[in-house]
Amino acid sequence: MSESVLAVDIGGTKFAAALVGPGGDVQAAERVATPPGGDAATLWKALDELVSAVAGDRPVAGVGIGCGGPMSWPDGAVSPLNMPGWRAFPLRDRLAARFPGVPVRIHNDAVCVAVAEHWRGAGRGSANMLGMVVSTGVGGGLVLGDRLIDGGSGNAGHIGHIVVDPDGPACGCGGRGCLEAVARGPGLAAWAVEQGWIPGRVAGSAAPVPAPAYVEAATATGRQLALDAAAGDATALAAMGRAGRALGLAIASATHLCDLDVVTVGGGLSQAGPLLFGPMEETLRAHVGLDFARRVRVVPASLGQDAGLVGAAALILAADRYWSPRD
Amino acid sequence: MSESVLAVDIGGTKFAAALVGPGGDVQAAERVATPPGGDAATLWKALDELVSAVAGDRPVAGVGIGCGGPMSWPDGAVSPLNMPGWRAFPLRDRLAARFPGVPVRIHNDAVCVAVAEHWRGAGRGSANMLGMVVSTGVGGGLVLGDRLIDGGSGNAGHIGHIVVDPDGPACGCGGRGCLEAVARGPGLAAWAVEQGWIPGRVAGSAAPVPAPAYVEAATATGRQLALDAAAGDATALAAMGRAGRALGLAIASATHLCDLDVVTVGGGLSQAGPLLFGPMEETLRAHVGLDFARRVRVVPASLGQDAGLVGAAALILAADRYWSPRD
Repeated sequence: MSESVLAVDIGGTKFAAALVGPGGDVQAAERVATPPGGDAATLWKALDELVSAVAGDRPVAGVGIGCGGPMSWPDGAVSPLNMPGWRAFPLRDRLAARFPGVPVRIHNDAVCVAVAEHWRGAGRGSANMLGMVVSTGVGGGLVLGDRLIDGGSGNAGHIGHIVVDPDGPACGCGGRGCLEAVARGPGLAAWAVEQGWIPGRVAGSAAPVPAPAYVEAATATGRQLALDAAAGDATALAAMGRAGRALGLAIASATHLCDLDVVTVGGGLSQAGPLLFGPMEETLRAHVGLDFARRVRVVPASLGQDAGLVGAAALILAADRYWSPRD
Repeated sequence: MSESVLAVDIGGTKFAAALVGPGGDVQAAERVATPPGGDAATLWKALDELVSAVAGDRPVAGVGIGCGGPMSWPDGAVSPLNMPGWRAFPLRDRLAARFPGVPVRIHNDAVCVAVAEHWRGAGRGSANMLGMVVSTGVGGGLVLGDRLIDGGSGNAGHIGHIVVDPDGPACGCGGRGCLEAVARGPGLAAWAVEQGWIPGRVAGSAAPVPAPAYVEAATATGRQLALDAAAGDATALAAMGRAGRALGLAIASATHLCDLDVVTVGGGLSQAGPLLFGPMEETLRAHVGLDFARRVRVVPASLGQDAGLVGAAALILAADRYWSPRD
């Protein structure tokens, strides 16, 4: 019997799969672009080919899957927001049929990232952790008492919908003023464009600056905003401040409610580094006064693009901490 | 060996103690006023006499204690905010010496109330619950996956310090715009007085109204505010709306982060009933759009003044769910 598991990470832009060893080591990772506009069968075919390429005829000890939500859980019928071809698609069941006789488990992709950071990343050794992903959306996962918290329907960890500005922008969830509505890359970029930001053209310098290589491809994305902020653009910097403050407020609230030791922050926007973490820390510290809350540390996530795979594998390899439902 | 436990509930206005049977039935409860301004020895003497009166010479299976925070936990050296006579007072150790040979366990008083509502009250049967107490302060306790969540230092459940108004009033915790800063009874009453509220004199009616019996004793408290709101005072009603909206925002945030099934709300201010629960529900529903979050139910706490005792007893009687540390 193999001790490696097959890990699968399903996203709107790419599918990834790998074999992951008992220690969390990622072997033979493969990635393919998500078939754009693919229907259910096309998407499944791409995934099936990918896992065949990775697993070949080798036996695996189990299959762990991370996938964008929403999904029914733990049965794993998925309806990823940005993959309209799959609506209530029985992803877990299909992979269970493809790999019979071993456990096949699924969780939200941001939850898998949080699990990975707790198991093998920046949250290692902390029993009470919130793992965050700040990207196209703002997601997360919650580990308390050294156990992954699932909540009533597998949806615990939705830090992106903590309300940080009660009268703030409408959120895709139907609410208003959620962290995600303020700090998600596209929302932040839209705000910056309203404020006069022109992607890739760094403003706020008296002398004309030579156009950097990325200008021609520059579009109004969170990642471009981070790049322009790093290059000194005043509006892009203001946008990072805006996102950082919203993150700081949400982290303060989560820390008080859950008595957290550590928060890990990853995802595209976190690439802005101190430009984001600075205002985030400043706001957090202004809102935590009680001794227990002041303990919290906020650190960059450390596992990069493999995190989703490592966390998916942990659903099998470290099930005592990260998997609660009966299979 | 007795199967009953001694439960103790330590508050700034009263000490309570009772024997509690295995099913959570409260027997022989006694209450005494907290010695006002008492030093450490005076406070301990009052408690020692109280537990002697309740337990007598009967053996008990253990001792469960709820006490106002902050405290070091689980060792239980307490420094209750409103009992300056006890600072790092070894309350748990003193009771352990008084009742040798049995487990003696302590938790925050609001945590004990939440445990009670989960074990025997309005949250019974729900695996994922937030129990709230809205009174002089705003406290709570968190049960997830059918287990009490302690957090890194026993302080999980501090719903009162979720930020509901980033630029709102300063909070006693050192932060700003916390739920507690807005919705705690004294804070809310102070806000109402600023708006012109005169406690016990019901305004907003065209015709003079006969003075109700409670007028002479009326002071600017949250409880009086609830009474005046019930009697139709416009400012008191506005205050209930203000508190309700703050509660709704905090509950929305907690629901998203923890994927809650149910929230129980007790404490003095909750006596306002629909005047508080109405605006709370309205705000909550405006901020929960995702299916999983819309599931949440907010219900009045059901156990009343015995809740703290029942929850303290559960630290012994239902330790599999409510007690995680090693003794």
